[in-house]
Amino acid sequence: MAFSPLLNQLIHALRVLPGVGNKTAQRMAFYLLERNREGGQQLADTLKEAVIKVGRCRRCRVLCETPTCSLCQDPNRDVTQLCVVETPANVAAVEQAGGYKGLYFVLSGHLSPLDGIGPEQVGLPELAFLLEDASIQEVVLATSSTVEGEATAYYIADMVKEKGITVSRIAQGVPMGGELEYVDGGTIARALKDRSEI
Amino acid sequence: MAFSPLLNQLIHALRVLPGVGNKTAQRMAFYLLERNREGGQQLADTLKEAVIKVGRCRRCRVLCETPTCSLCQDPNRDVTQLCVVETPANVAAVEQAGGYKGLYFVLSGHLSPLDGIGPEQVGLPELAFLLEDASIQEVVLATSSTVEGEATAYYIADMVKEKGITVSRIAQGVPMGGELEYVDGGTIARALKDRSEI
Repeated sequence: MAFSPLLNQLIHALRVLPGVGNKTAQRMAFYLLERNREGGQQLADTLKEAVIKVGRCRRCRVLCETPTCSLCQDPNRDVTQLCVVETPANVAAVEQAGGYKGLYFVLSGHLSPLDGIGPEQVGLPELAFLLEDASIQEVVLATSSTVEGEATAYYIADMVKEKGITVSRIAQGVPMGGELEYVDGGTIARALKDRSEI
Repeated sequence: MAFSPLLNQLIHALRVLPGVGNKTAQRMAFYLLERNREGGQQLADTLKEAVIKVGRCRRCRVLCETPTCSLCQDPNRDVTQLCVVETPANVAAVEQAGGYKGLYFVLSGHLSPLDGIGPEQVGLPELAFLLEDASIQEVVLATSSTVEGEATAYYIADMVKEKGITVSRIAQGVPMGGELEYVDGGTIARALKDRSEI
């Protein structure tokens, strides 16, 4: 179809967004140009600024535009606990869940030797450096419950234990509100094995 | 959660996109900042340019960055036919369907007197001006098959007939590939009424 070149460019550019295909990109482009130019302008400006300014906290490597993030600067956080996650989005997930009051360390994903992603690529030297901090008493491994996430957790557990620091792994089992008939066998087996007396 | 202020701003700005809620905006923001800054930069630049430069064709009112759109300038289009649609996106839909070779006129939505949207607001004076063009022999009304779209079509039909130009309305019936049991009663009734001999 003969969209104008600039409109075509915009539709193409919108397709970089995750989960956005051609039809959705068209709908977004038309919506922004027909009904919400101000919002579009605002989005363009904010995105440009964020892409340039947002970096990573030099301590925990979460995304932020200051050298150290607000979590690492917060005097009310428990500095004896360090939660290790795979991505900055996971920090958000743990924070939104509530209940955890310690600090974080964000890996660059998980170990994947076949793809050439080893300990250095996921940031384990930086984690080792952080563990020199005498205040850390427990490392909570909150990597994903996937094969790679598990492998990464075990690798880090060995590394942390060597330094004489307690290591724990988040619990695995049936998700809250999960109906048993829809939960996979592996999860049920694990939940049975790790059952606790009530 | 303590997202950094700029990250919060970006998530908020992404929510102007249609169909994007808080979770999706978070996912988009993290994706752009963690994995595709170049794509994000490109999107910001293109969006900014489009919001400033894209206007409407002065003849058919489709979205384009030139005074007259490429369709109106195309010498291969049939200037005797004028298809009236509600939005620029509808032009794209008709073009992508293929088969129509005439020109277009894009309304600003449909008539909706209760919301204060009358003939002037949807652009009927501009349509009337266009109809003075002696080359137009048929106006094809392709407004939506909704109550408002129908009302708009009838209003325009009266206006066009007064000028002695043929008016037609796109056919209504069962959509292609539509299984009869999932088609609503109104559509089936209409399809039966407008049946054609084979």
